[in-house]
Amino acid sequence: LNKSATPDIQARLDNLTKPRGSLGRLEDLALRLTLISMAAGRGNLPQADPARIYTCAADHGVAARGVSKFPQEVTRQMVFNFLNGGAAVNVFTRSSDVELRVVDVGVKGADFADTPGLLNRKIAQGTADISAGPAMSLQECISAVELGISLAEQAANEGIRVVGTGEMGIANTTAATALYCAYLDLPPETITGPGTGLNEQEIRHKAGVVGRALQTNHVELPPADPMRTLAALGGLEIACLSGLILGCARRKLAVVIDGFISTAAYVAAWKIHPSVGDYAFFAHGSAEPGHSVILHHLRVRPILDLGMRLGEGTGVALAIPILRAAAAMYNNMASFADAGVSGSDDSA
Amino acid sequence: LNKSATPDIQARLDNLTKPRGSLGRLEDLALRLTLISMAAGRGNLPQADPARIYTCAADHGVAARGVSKFPQEVTRQMVFNFLNGGAAVNVFTRSSDVELRVVDVGVKGADFADTPGLLNRKIAQGTADISAGPAMSLQECISAVELGISLAEQAANEGIRVVGTGEMGIANTTAATALYCAYLDLPPETITGPGTGLNEQEIRHKAGVVGRALQTNHVELPPADPMRTLAALGGLEIACLSGLILGCARRKLAVVIDGFISTAAYVAAWKIHPSVGDYAFFAHGSAEPGHSVILHHLRVRPILDLGMRLGEGTGVALAIPILRAAAAMYNNMASFADAGVSGSDDSA
Repeated sequence: LNKSATPDIQARLDNLTKPRGSLGRLEDLALRLTLISMAAGRGNLPQADPARIYTCAADHGVAARGVSKFPQEVTRQMVFNFLNGGAAVNVFTRSSDVELRVVDVGVKGADFADTPGLLNRKIAQGTADISAGPAMSLQECISAVELGISLAEQAANEGIRVVGTGEMGIANTTAATALYCAYLDLPPETITGPGTGLNEQEIRHKAGVVGRALQTNHVELPPADPMRTLAALGGLEIACLSGLILGCARRKLAVVIDGFISTAAYVAAWKIHPSVGDYAFFAHGSAEPGHSVILHHLRVRPILDLGMRLGEGTGVALAIPILRAAAAMYNNMASFADAGVSGSDDSA
Repeated sequence: LNKSATPDIQARLDNLTKPRGSLGRLEDLALRLTLISMAAGRGNLPQADPARIYTCAADHGVAARGVSKFPQEVTRQMVFNFLNGGAAVNVFTRSSDVELRVVDVGVKGADFADTPGLLNRKIAQGTADISAGPAMSLQECISAVELGISLAEQAANEGIRVVGTGEMGIANTTAATALYCAYLDLPPETITGPGTGLNEQEIRHKAGVVGRALQTNHVELPPADPMRTLAALGGLEIACLSGLILGCARRKLAVVIDGFISTAAYVAAWKIHPSVGDYAFFAHGSAEPGHSVILHHLRVRPILDLGMRLGEGTGVALAIPILRAAAAMYNNMASFADAGVSGSDDSA
């Protein structure tokens, strides 16, 4: 991201009718959204609309290892819930006026019937159990990443200005935890958490499953190619989100990363192409305890911190109104000169 | 607030298609909004719309003591900016679909020309210098509080469901700091901060001004009646907001408190009538350093933490979409039974 316009953008921010810096994080958001618009050749004003969340769903073989409070069929049931408009992400996207697309990347069972907002793009019937071998073949993983890139391409072509990540997949905190451990060289115990609500003993069991996944797949871990690590430990929906994030960077679109699992997709994308960091915004700090460790590691601060741990893109749907307000501030606030307001004694 | 329905509300929250507790703070917000609806006899569902912010403006005699980076005339200039739609609170309320009312409670100079959204309710030509005597007479303070109560009455009668506080008044962080020190028995140094952007030496000077205000007005401080303390150290806009908060509690309306100055108005209201706590939501943690001390003292957590320190109601305008999402979650999400989604193994 070319940052040479930063002083000009900062000067405009400082000329708006408010004490300098008094809008805090919103000023940072407006600055980066403006740099993104400029990099994309979309003018020199920030844009946060229209916004669209892709909620990508897939199953995980590791669900058979007892790492979630919910049975595997809930992935499929929740996709039906998304298509019927009854899930949290539906309610929040309607409340925030954000578009929602649901993508079947690898939900077990037959394809879903055609429904508005649904993309049937099943690559496989879920992944294999990562504690016994690789989650998927390298080719399946590349297909999922390419699918995600194509979604970003489509969004850009349709005029979308902010893309959000969302996911559904029973047991996918286990896959995300394994990816964090592999990419960031962290021991499972520091990142493994309750997910949908495990107790302490169940968390220890889950950390053991992650440990076995790392051991079993050790030849696929860094310094191996990051795509091979993603294939070995990830999920089809996670790989698709990694591709979505890569595609947003390629097309110079702002991308808002949801919670614990989406951030694992981000880390994979970042390992593949570090420039994704320029386009990424982190929606919220998850209540899943490992998330704060990871965000600290990445040196990023989330926009919201509401103790949520649901996924689906729910955090993104709540963060987008903040991005929208940041853009509106930059685009629509009066300057001191326009409004005839006296400046501070520093600016005299 | 009658909390007897809490178990029923919690049971409904736990039946929505998400892991228990996974929407974190939004579940707490939905619970309290529901209790408020029930207390008001408005049914048993939470309501966050329509929402309206009252941005109350007044001048402060203590501005003459060099406690702000901006000259006093900026209060009046900013009211013109509000009326022309160019200030941050205008932009954010438009972005969030929140109504805005601007109230002249005591801006120096002539009344403003009639403008949609403006309430001309000037009680005095600003306050007197609190470092030399009381800010206002007890009767002026009572009039300002009664004005605020009447605004809440009007909002309730017009069907408003969420009220927000906002303010404008050069030097009002000094008045707010003095109120905190008096009501919560804190030394000026622990609460006095940069406001619009003072440097360290200027902050020490401002703390000295607060100290003189406390000394000069010592007979009006606790254990004196809290209304007398408000008259001695407060501001016309602050007293009006205290009344607004009291009026919301009387009419059982949710009230969202903005930042550092609005929270001082809340503390005054709370000292007058502690039940206001049941109806109050804290929009955001201000970057003004004393605010986190005060919120900790009050044992409340703000909804947002975006490093903002602008006032006007800007934090409220950003927090209301979160309240709206919380209400929508409770009102519109599918239950496990409705959606045919399997429960967790705990709920079997």
